[in-house]
Amino acid sequence: MVSLAQTSVVNTVVGSASQLQTLVLSVEDTRHIVEHVGLDALMDEMIARLIQAFEQFDPAQTVVPVRTGFSYEQPHVGLVEWMPLFEKHRQIVVKAVGYHPQNPSLYKLPTVLSTVSAYDPKSGHLTAVIDGTFLTALRTGAASAIATQHLASPDSQILGLIGVGAQAVTQLHGLSRCFDLKQVLIFDRDPAVSQTFTERIACLGLDHLDICQAEISDIVATADILCTATSVDVGHGPVFPDQSLKPWLHVNAVGADFPGKFEVPLSLLERSFVCPDFREQAICEGECQQLKDLKSIGSELSNVVKNPAQYRHYQQRFTVFDSTGFALEDQVAMNMLLDYATELSVGTLIKLESATAEVKNPYSFVL
Amino acid sequence: MVSLAQTSVVNTVVGSASQLQTLVLSVEDTRHIVEHVGLDALMDEMIARLIQAFEQFDPAQTVVPVRTGFSYEQPHVGLVEWMPLFEKHRQIVVKAVGYHPQNPSLYKLPTVLSTVSAYDPKSGHLTAVIDGTFLTALRTGAASAIATQHLASPDSQILGLIGVGAQAVTQLHGLSRCFDLKQVLIFDRDPAVSQTFTERIACLGLDHLDICQAEISDIVATADILCTATSVDVGHGPVFPDQSLKPWLHVNAVGADFPGKFEVPLSLLERSFVCPDFREQAICEGECQQLKDLKSIGSELSNVVKNPAQYRHYQQRFTVFDSTGFALEDQVAMNMLLDYATELSVGTLIKLESATAEVKNPYSFVL
Repeated sequence: MVSLAQTSVVNTVVGSASQLQTLVLSVEDTRHIVEHVGLDALMDEMIARLIQAFEQFDPAQTVVPVRTGFSYEQPHVGLVEWMPLFEKHRQIVVKAVGYHPQNPSLYKLPTVLSTVSAYDPKSGHLTAVIDGTFLTALRTGAASAIATQHLASPDSQILGLIGVGAQAVTQLHGLSRCFDLKQVLIFDRDPAVSQTFTERIACLGLDHLDICQAEISDIVATADILCTATSVDVGHGPVFPDQSLKPWLHVNAVGADFPGKFEVPLSLLERSFVCPDFREQAICEGECQQLKDLKSIGSELSNVVKNPAQYRHYQQRFTVFDSTGFALEDQVAMNMLLDYATELSVGTLIKLESATAEVKNPYSFVL
Repeated sequence: MVSLAQTSVVNTVVGSASQLQTLVLSVEDTRHIVEHVGLDALMDEMIARLIQAFEQFDPAQTVVPVRTGFSYEQPHVGLVEWMPLFEKHRQIVVKAVGYHPQNPSLYKLPTVLSTVSAYDPKSGHLTAVIDGTFLTALRTGAASAIATQHLASPDSQILGLIGVGAQAVTQLHGLSRCFDLKQVLIFDRDPAVSQTFTERIACLGLDHLDICQAEISDIVATADILCTATSVDVGHGPVFPDQSLKPWLHVNAVGADFPGKFEVPLSLLERSFVCPDFREQAICEGECQQLKDLKSIGSELSNVVKNPAQYRHYQQRFTVFDSTGFALEDQVAMNMLLDYATELSVGTLIKLESATAEVKNPYSFVL
């Protein structure tokens, strides 16, 4: 094990067994990167990189299968699944993500635990393993920011947040980088979670914002932009009523990630432009699973970003971003962090795969 | 990052964020374990643990989906895929495995590169990441040894090896622990590979064995047990002719792991008891893909091990073990190595997943 010198991580040239090392970024390493770059600069760069990735996204070159995994009721409700991506010739990225809503109460752990692995398709070598929890939060906030930039009224000032757990922090962060927000109305079914929200976003330096707890009905009647990021149980959605909405309301529906789980009223979806991050997956796990007529699903976010003028008229209408999580976002976030790891020489290179110069002998490494 | 003290790895009790560490076993760590335990003892224990796992295997408790992944022709022929396993309540194991037949010639790397990850289904926590290359070699040898023990003639003395790359080393190793072998007849289409075989198995201490290079026709006419472990190209099988075989020949067909790739003549399969490691996968990627009549596929190895008496009469008939790789074998091998890592205090604990006491703030770990 050696500490990382100046090495290009993402495009590591596979040479021989002696170079077969995997970059492992610990939480400490990520902290070092965030402290060096700054949270705002990191979010801004994430948004910029993700816009560029959407513009360049070519499904013929980057294959993104629907995630698969294991979901279960015992010992607690949860799932562990894999979100793979293959950018031909360049990189394979697999995010393993666990969703266990009882983690906070039972284990004092976040609901989402995650790691991301990158492989070199030339040889199959595992080039890097990094935390996916922070990265997922960051990219989910960035994706909503991009969708909102394209689909919400540009002078939106009032943000509503229904569910103000971990995801709400990055939703607000991303949006605050793109909109001149004045007021944030928040609700969480757990009052203790609402109460800590201001404290939790203190690091974002948004002191000018008027942040108020409010009833759901008041939030939806007032908000220009609404983010739902709840752990609503399967079959218990939607999480807000379809009444008294501003006619230009844009919703970022972030919570749905499970068959049967959804947050947005069907009647609102039916008269909105619904923009999924990843259509095929949104139909299975997102708000789109409510739409029996698949024709009523709008373009994916990558298409909206490619042709912004074509979608600008929706900024004065109801729009819903159906965010289920898209592996391209994880790839972009991972590569940004790996680039900073290289630049700042953080991370640990570990020889994890047993390979020696004598490739035809699986035991030679012990001799 | 701290070095591993005496901690139970496999059954780590998830406590709180401060305990959320992942055990990473480097190649050095694995080497330490192998040197301490010894290759023969490790293979013997692998065989014993795998027999026990087969005996206890309950598909209702341990879910093993068919592997999925990406396969491609460019920049070189290859695939990277994931073999997941979920033992309910206890463990999720995912092996990532790359198969790139040009690795040895292009990069001086093994054809197979692999890592294995284990997750705690209580919280989704990644408990361990270890090399999968050595582990795959070991468990593939052990699986063939177990199949051969159950299905070959007990006094088999002559082993034929067609394809004597990395896999052949562990095939011979596993079989040498269960049979009183006298002679090994070897063939590889690359003479350079044949020439180094004796040298590569020197670590096995099998000096009493008569190891001879031979033509394929002589090998199949003489062998009691035959192992095929080739990188035959798709559509170019079988790798030996169906002629002059001993009527009790047992074949371990190890190479097939790709749609269209197979090693055993169909005519031999049709008059053999064909025992797949994992039926559903063998039908897609193994020798079983040649058998259009699925009824002609025999029981899986786990069933044979559960009811040995029922299958003993096949020891005097043609039998084929269709080994495509079964995630249960990987789980058993991983847990054996993790148990030794605990016992010997090797490995590195890394805090890889960003989680802090403040579970509702994805940014709190940087504050």
